[in-house]
Amino acid sequence: MIYLDHAAATPVDKRVLTTMEPYFLDDFFNPSAAYLPAKKVAADYEAAKATIAHAIGAKASDLVITAGATEANNLAFTAISTDFTLEFGGFRSAAARGLARSPRGDGRERRDPESSVNSVLYLETEHDSVRSVAQRYGGQTIKVLKNGLIDLADLKNKITDETELISVSLVNNEIGVVQPLAEIASLIRNIKLDRFKRGVKRELLLHSDASQALNLLDIKVARLGIDLLTLNAAKIYGPKGVGALYVSHEAKLQPMTVGGGQENGLRSGTENVPGVIGFAKAVEIASEHLNGNRKKYAAWRKILLNKLENYELINKKHALDNFIVLCYNGIDAERLIYLLEEKGVYVATGAACAASKGRKSHVLKALGLDDSQIAGSLRLSLGETNTEEQMRDAAKIINNAVSSEYKRVKKS
Amino acid sequence: MIYLDHAAATPVDKRVLTTMEPYFLDDFFNPSAAYLPAKKVAADYEAAKATIAHAIGAKASDLVITAGATEANNLAFTAISTDFTLEFGGFRSAAARGLARSPRGDGRERRDPESSVNSVLYLETEHDSVRSVAQRYGGQTIKVLKNGLIDLADLKNKITDETELISVSLVNNEIGVVQPLAEIASLIRNIKLDRFKRGVKRELLLHSDASQALNLLDIKVARLGIDLLTLNAAKIYGPKGVGALYVSHEAKLQPMTVGGGQENGLRSGTENVPGVIGFAKAVEIASEHLNGNRKKYAAWRKILLNKLENYELINKKHALDNFIVLCYNGIDAERLIYLLEEKGVYVATGAACAASKGRKSHVLKALGLDDSQIAGSLRLSLGETNTEEQMRDAAKIINNAVSSEYKRVKKS
Repeated sequence: MIYLDHAAATPVDKRVLTTMEPYFLDDFFNPSAAYLPAKKVAADYEAAKATIAHAIGAKASDLVITAGATEANNLAFTAISTDFTLEFGGFRSAAARGLARSPRGDGRERRDPESSVNSVLYLETEHDSVRSVAQRYGGQTIKVLKNGLIDLADLKNKITDETELISVSLVNNEIGVVQPLAEIASLIRNIKLDRFKRGVKRELLLHSDASQALNLLDIKVARLGIDLLTLNAAKIYGPKGVGALYVSHEAKLQPMTVGGGQENGLRSGTENVPGVIGFAKAVEIASEHLNGNRKKYAAWRKILLNKLENYELINKKHALDNFIVLCYNGIDAERLIYLLEEKGVYVATGAACAASKGRKSHVLKALGLDDSQIAGSLRLSLGETNTEEQMRDAAKIINNAVSSEYKRVKKS
Repeated sequence: MIYLDHAAATPVDKRVLTTMEPYFLDDFFNPSAAYLPAKKVAADYEAAKATIAHAIGAKASDLVITAGATEANNLAFTAISTDFTLEFGGFRSAAARGLARSPRGDGRERRDPESSVNSVLYLETEHDSVRSVAQRYGGQTIKVLKNGLIDLADLKNKITDETELISVSLVNNEIGVVQPLAEIASLIRNIKLDRFKRGVKRELLLHSDASQALNLLDIKVARLGIDLLTLNAAKIYGPKGVGALYVSHEAKLQPMTVGGGQENGLRSGTENVPGVIGFAKAVEIASEHLNGNRKKYAAWRKILLNKLENYELINKKHALDNFIVLCYNGIDAERLIYLLEEKGVYVATGAACAASKGRKSHVLKALGLDDSQIAGSLRLSLGETNTEEQMRDAAKIINNAVSSEYKRVKKS
C-alpha cells in the first residue's frame, strides 16, 4: 500500500495509542467524580489540554475540547452576536437573520436577502464545515487569487462596520496553500483601531481552521493575531472524534451543547479523556518533528515532481510540501483513482466529504480552473506512512495509469 | 479497589478495546474516501451502527451518531419547530421564545414570561443535559411521585395543544428508577388521536434518555413508543465520547453541526470509526448478558442491604438493582466519600457533574427528602468491575465509616 491521502485521514501513531490505553481500561473514572483516582484523571486531562494549548502558545483554559474540527468550526461562529428577537431591544444582526429558519423546521435555512451587511466573511476556498456554518450566518465570500492566496484587496473592500467575524483557514485542505494570517490580523487591528476612534463598538474576530497545519507549521496564536483557532487530532496521527477550539478573551461564545457544564460551560458532556490524552501525545510528537518533517516532505515532493510525467502542477507556490495537486487535462481523475487503487496507491480528487457526493471542487474552481481541468485533478497528500522509496514507486505507477488513460481517451 | 460508581463511568471492556484497535492503526481511512479500503471502513461503520440499532429494534439509518449522550439529548430537542423570526410568516413558538438570547450574546438565555404554553415538558428528575436544554426551550417540569415514578396526572394536566416534546429518561441516573415509558407513550397516542380529530396539526414527540439502561433493559423503540432515544457507549463499557440518537420518522431534526453532511446531514464531521466500532461491540456484549446481569445485581443488592447497617433505603422500588441509594441521616455524605476513598471504596453522592459543583441533588429533593437527608445520601452503582466478595467487603467498610462518623458527630 502506498497511501497518499493523509489530508483525508491519518492513522493513529502507535505511541499515541499506547498513551491512550490506560485511560480506556484503568484510569476510566469520570473526571467530575469526588474520589482521588477520578481527580487524578481530571488532572491528567487538564495537563493534556495544557500540552495542546502550549503548542499554540496558549493556556489549557483557552481551549474548548470538541468532537473534532467540524464542531470546533461551528462553535467558533457562535461568537457572532446572535440576537434572535426584536423583543429584547437589540437590533437584529445579519447573523441572526442568516440563521432564520422556515416555520415548520424543514431543515433548511433561509438567507435573508438584506444580509449584505457582511457580518461574516469567509474565504471561498474554505472546507465545507466552515462554508456551511458561515452560510447559516449569512456569510459572504472573500476571493482568492489564482495562486490560492487570499485577495487582500477583496477582503478590505468587503469589511463593513457590521463585520464581526472573518474566517480564513491557515492551510487549505485541498491545495495546502498557507494563508498570510499575520498580515490579515494586522489589517484587522487597523480596522479595530479605526472603529475605536469612531466609536463603533462591534467586535471584529479572526477565526482560522488549522486542522491541516498543526504538524507542519509552528502556530502561535498571539504572533498570528488569531481570536479563534480550530485544531484537529485526526489529521496529525491522533484519534478521530477529538478536536479543540482556541478562544481568545475577545471572543464570547455561546454553547451549542448544554448540560453538566464541562469545558467552562461551553461544551457539556463527560470528557473524552482517552481522546484528549491521545491528542496531546500526537501534538507532542508533531512538535518535536516540525522541521524534520518539512524537510522530508520537501525532498519527497522534489522526487515526485521529477519522476512524474505529463502533469500540470496546480499548487506551485505557497503550499505545504506534502500537498501536491496535479492536473491531467482531458483525463477523468475519478477513473485514475480506481486504476491506482488496483495497484495499491490511494489518492484523492479533493476533500473526501465533498468528493463522496460527486461534487466538483469549489477550491479548484476558485483558482480559475475550468471543468475539464478540475475533472483531471489529483491530490497527493504525503505523510508519516510514506517512505522515499514509495515516492519513486508511486510516480511510476501513476505515470503508467495516466499514459494508459491517455491512450484509451485518444482511441475513443 | 472496590468501585461502586458505575453510573458515573465504566471502564472499557477489553474485548471492546481489542475490536477498536485495528481501526486506530490500520483501517484508519476516511469513510468518505473513494478507494476500496476506505469503502470497507465505511461498510464496517454502517454495520456497527446496524448492530447498535438492532439492539433497540431499529435500523442503522435511524441513528445519528454523536459525541455522547449530552449531545444526543441536545440534538433531540431540535425536533421542536424553531421559528426564530416573525418575518417568514409563522407564529413564533414557545420554543423559539425560550431560545431568545440577550442582544450582545452574554451566554445567558432569557425565558419569555409568556412561555407557559408548555411546548416542552420534562421530568423534574432528569439529568442536567436534559434539564439545561429543556430550559433553553422554555420547558416546564413534570412532577415525580415519592417513589420517583412520573406523576402521570401531572403530565396529563400539563400537556396542552402547544406541547411538542416530552422528555422522560428511561432510567434515572441517580436513583435508577425505571419510568413506565410504554404507559406514557400510550397516553401520548390518545392525545395525538384527539388532536387529529380536532384538526390540531402539531407533532407530539416522546424523547427518552436511555444512557443508563442499555446494558440492563431490553429496549425496543416500537414497543416503548419512543420517537427520540438517547444512547451512550461510555455507560455500558464502551468508549467515552460516543453516543447516538435514535430518530423516528415523525421527528424532524435540525443539525446542530453543519459541514461535510455526514449522518444524513444531521451531524457533520469525519466519523469516529473506532468509537462506533467499540460502541457496537459493547452493545453486543451487553445484549448477550441482559438477564444474567440483572440476576447478578439483584443478588448483590440483597447481600448489601443485608450487611449494611443504620441506613434508610431511598430507592426501595421500581429501580434497577445495580442502583442503591442509602440515606444516613445526620451524616455528611461528602465526608463519607473521603473516608471510604481511604479504604479504596469509591462511591458518589449523586451525578458526578452536579456533585462536582457542590450542588444539592435535585433528584432527591424531588422525592421529598429534606436537606439533611440529601446531605446524608450515598449512591452505590454496581457494575462489571465488581464481585460478590466485594459486596461483603464494601458493606463492612461502609458500616465502619458510618459508625465512626456517627460517633464523631455525637461528640461534637
